[in-house]
Amino acid sequence: MYRNTKKKVHGLLHPEIVGDKHWDKIINIFIVILIILNVVAVILETVPEIHDKYGDFFYYFDWISVIIFTVEYVLRVWSSNHDEKYRHSLWGRLKYMVSPAALIDLVAIVPSYLHAFIGLDLRVLRMLRLLRFLRLFRLTAYTKPAHMIMNVFRKRKNELALSFILASFLIIIASCVIYFVEHRHPTEETSQFRSIPATIWWAVVSLTTTGYGDMYPLTDLGKVLASIIMLTGVAFFALPAGIITAGFIDEFRLTRVKKTHRCPSCGEPIELEDNNNHHH
Amino acid sequence: MYRNTKKKVHGLLHPEIVGDKHWDKIINIFIVILIILNVVAVILETVPEIHDKYGDFFYYFDWISVIIFTVEYVLRVWSSNHDEKYRHSLWGRLKYMVSPAALIDLVAIVPSYLHAFIGLDLRVLRMLRLLRFLRLFRLTAYTKPAHMIMNVFRKRKNELALSFILASFLIIIASCVIYFVEHRHPTEETSQFRSIPATIWWAVVSLTTTGYGDMYPLTDLGKVLASIIMLTGVAFFALPAGIITAGFIDEFRLTRVKKTHRCPSCGEPIELEDNNNHHH
Amino acid sequence: MYRNTKKKVHGLLHPEIVGDKHWDKIINIFIVILIILNVVAVILETVPEIHDKYGDFFYYFDWISVIIFTVEYVLRVWSSNHDEKYRHSLWGRLKYMVSPAALIDLVAIVPSYLHAFIGLDLRVLRMLRLLRFLRLFRLTAYTKPAHMIMNVFRKRKNELALSFILASFLIIIASCVIYFVEHRHPTEETSQFRSIPATIWWAVVSLTTTGYGDMYPLTDLGKVLASIIMLTGVAFFALPAGIITAGFIDEFRLTRVKKTHRCPSCGEPIELEDNNNHHH
Amino acid sequence: MYRNTKKKVHGLLHPEIVGDKHWDKIINIFIVILIILNVVAVILETVPEIHDKYGDFFYYFDWISVIIFTVEYVLRVWSSNHDEKYRHSLWGRLKYMVSPAALIDLVAIVPSYLHAFIGLDLRVLRMLRLLRFLRLFRLTAYTKPAHMIMNVFRKRKNELALSFILASFLIIIASCVIYFVEHRHPTEETSQFRSIPATIWWAVVSLTTTGYGDMYPLTDLGKVLASIIMLTGVAFFALPAGIITAGFIDEFRLTRVKKTHRCPSCGEPIELEDNNNHHH
Repeated sequence: MYRNTKKKVHGLLHPEIVGDKHWDKIINIFIVILIILNVVAVILETVPEIHDKYGDFFYYFDWISVIIFTVEYVLRVWSSNHDEKYRHSLWGRLKYMVSPAALIDLVAIVPSYLHAFIGLDLRVLRMLRLLRFLRLFRLTAYTKPAHMIMNVFRKRKNELALSFILASFLIIIASCVIYFVEHRHPTEETSQFRSIPATIWWAVVSLTTTGYGDMYPLTDLGKVLASIIMLTGVAFFALPAGIITAGFIDEFRLTRVKKTHRCPSCGEPIELEDNNNHHH
Repeated sequence: MYRNTKKKVHGLLHPEIVGDKHWDKIINIFIVILIILNVVAVILETVPEIHDKYGDFFYYFDWISVIIFTVEYVLRVWSSNHDEKYRHSLWGRLKYMVSPAALIDLVAIVPSYLHAFIGLDLRVLRMLRLLRFLRLFRLTAYTKPAHMIMNVFRKRKNELALSFILASFLIIIASCVIYFVEHRHPTEETSQFRSIPATIWWAVVSLTTTGYGDMYPLTDLGKVLASIIMLTGVAFFALPAGIITAGFIDEFRLTRVKKTHRCPSCGEPIELEDNNNHHH
Repeated sequence: MYRNTKKKVHGLLHPEIVGDKHWDKIINIFIVILIILNVVAVILETVPEIHDKYGDFFYYFDWISVIIFTVEYVLRVWSSNHDEKYRHSLWGRLKYMVSPAALIDLVAIVPSYLHAFIGLDLRVLRMLRLLRFLRLFRLTAYTKPAHMIMNVFRKRKNELALSFILASFLIIIASCVIYFVEHRHPTEETSQFRSIPATIWWAVVSLTTTGYGDMYPLTDLGKVLASIIMLTGVAFFALPAGIITAGFIDEFRLTRVKKTHRCPSCGEPIELEDNNNHHH
Repeated sequence: MYRNTKKKVHGLLHPEIVGDKHWDKIINIFIVILIILNVVAVILETVPEIHDKYGDFFYYFDWISVIIFTVEYVLRVWSSNHDEKYRHSLWGRLKYMVSPAALIDLVAIVPSYLHAFIGLDLRVLRMLRLLRFLRLFRLTAYTKPAHMIMNVFRKRKNELALSFILASFLIIIASCVIYFVEHRHPTEETSQFRSIPATIWWAVVSLTTTGYGDMYPLTDLGKVLASIIMLTGVAFFALPAGIITAGFIDEFRLTRVKKTHRCPSCGEPIELEDNNNHHH
């Protein structure tokens, strides 16, 4: 009976492993909604007017959430050794506790206890509850797109890393050039381009095309050079977009090709690899 | 004769269903131009100088438009049961009246009557006449591209939804990080980053690379973190662009492949599915 | 002899038609450089300091250019009936004179004469000399890329037009929404969002992600709605980029496929259409 | 023995040529880290507070780096004639010394000596040590992506050049139009759009969608024209992105196709050129 209860609890808390029964879904959706509400609460609590007015409400809501998350965490750890991977009743559970998913769950509840019992105010860490939101990706509808996006980033990680190194290069070179041109601007008493690190901020803001307008070259030469830099930046910052797009095209093609086709004349299955078709 | 008139009226108002006769086109183009002029009128009326000078003109133009739209609406409802889908003389017409297209047509005229007879000023809703503009997509030239764009969004809706969830994630995380770094900035009396919701506005403006310049980090650490966030944002906000581009490439390929090819050896037509050709 | 001279002159001025002899190139490059210098002169002349200092120089440079362009124009018209298309000695030449290329050449010289003889100051039209710059695309290196880019825009003109109609839609809807939310902002004496046309300027600046910072929503609701609009804009303004990219991929593929391949076993040429391979 | 030492030294300093032995890597990584630290030092030295506090440290760090780089440079030149290309003991070494890689290495050390011995302060040139950073691309992980990115730019250089010429065109035309509309703006005492070169700065900042907000049209006509220009710019500045993306797709396809496939019927390897497979 004890085993059965554990199996049941395990199934309820891991709907993606065991099945799609009714209660799993309700519990899972309830937890996801509670996480979203917690994130919203942390965000709204920082608004002074809302904090002054509904401070008590946020306090109680936080404690109710922590208690629910604690119960869920304890049940997860207890039922974890139902899983093949964490079979041993002690080491298996400890192994589960140090898994990333379990650590994220722990981090979401510990700060509140630390604050209540030791007085250590780490409630800033409550923002880490946001990480629990990642479980959303285990939901059925987003499994495939999530894998696809991850695949694109994983397969193209070298190209993407290199394009970011090239972007950093452009940022550093642009900063040096503009700094040496602008930092002794005569008509302004104190130039905004005081140092290269300050100019890097300008370069990042300009090359990502954000352009706050807090810093911009004032000398003619600075404007000419900044124009060249910004036009070059259009091509350089198109690199990651191009790599990601090419990656998606590959992923979509693979999904399409994976389906087995049959030869219309003899009915035998044709295996298709890439976009090359082999038939007899 | 009554049936024939109805058929004729139905044909005139639904040129895309019945045919491409001369009068259909004239009526349809007249209605589209009238809708565009209405939208332009609503836009221009909000300019105080124009409103003061041409107020009467706008008033009469609005009433003439409403009367024409009303006549068109009544004729559409009356002739609607010519259509197979709305066959019954009463229920068929009611069914037509609750169809989205008919509701949009109704919403375009009701506010003016409410204002004239009950005094209820819902003329703001006149902007909804803009929605009638959507009928432009039924015109021949835009049918194919409109289907293509809709297909791209429909087939890739999960990927696009996920990329927007990821973007929201980045926005929330960026807001939390920058808020905790910036909100106690010492040299400014009142930091712009008063709360996380206020910082979300900064994050959206920065990550979409709009960068109004009303808010930007002032501390050194804030600038370093904002730089990292903005560079990461380049990759994250390239995701929807990449998905849409890959979707268009698929759509263009499908259009190309749908044309029947012939086997060069036996001359029989080859049906092509995706980009794989099966022949014997 | 007269014919031969005409043929020679025609060849010298139309190197892309007749051949790649030595003098053609020199004359052509000289004219292109003169056009570029003219454009640079018109640009620099607007700088007050430069105009005051080098005004005379610009005056003489302009007249020398006009005389050279006039001689070139007269020779082009004279030799035009060497071409098969403009065979007749009078009508052929007149036909040539109303061709777009010849009109652009005429427009580049007429304003200076009008100013000198009639006193009509249309020298602003000198900027139209910029259009003569378009002949650069007839140079060998850029013929293929120019055709490619033109093909992309031409073949996808319906999709691009539709994506701009959709963008206009988003701009108008965004302007209406933000206008109604912002135009009575209480804390500012005069809201920037005075009318819908004024708000359209905001919408264009925001949705193209330029973000000058002269206008931005100040109310909380306005910021929330503007955030949604800007995030939606990321997807909508990715449409033209996606269509253009997909068009380039098609063009590159076509260039690749056009080359005839030979079957490695039997040596016979294999004609490849699209990316489908037919062999025996 | 002398030859052996030279071979060993040559191997240690050119790990990408000879092999992946242990010491090569350590030396190479040490040099790369030293270069990065030098770049960081040059950047930080420009911050007045840091320079005042750690000036001595930077001074000594610079001299230690220069000595290490000098030793490395001398050893490289000495061992260079181990290479087949620079076989001759004098001319070979001189030939090596004028190779771009060796010149970059020289430029990184000469300014410090010039300053110390002649008093010529060219220490600005120390920034050129950044160029030595390019050797990072010889590291194994980035060889393939670096080749890929270079291939994309090299193969599509004509298309990219043309798209930048078109962008320049749009910038010049936009500047002329907006200058003539804005430069006599009545309500502002001195319009920002003083001359066409000043307006070109506006056009670059606007069309790259940076939008600092230091200049923007103030007249109604100027805003209408600027809106049209910015919307056109979305399509024009999508050209380089489209070309780069299409180039990446080609490169990824080539990598995929280069792997040899086998014919499923006869088992013989099929050589694939582009995406067309020929088999018998």
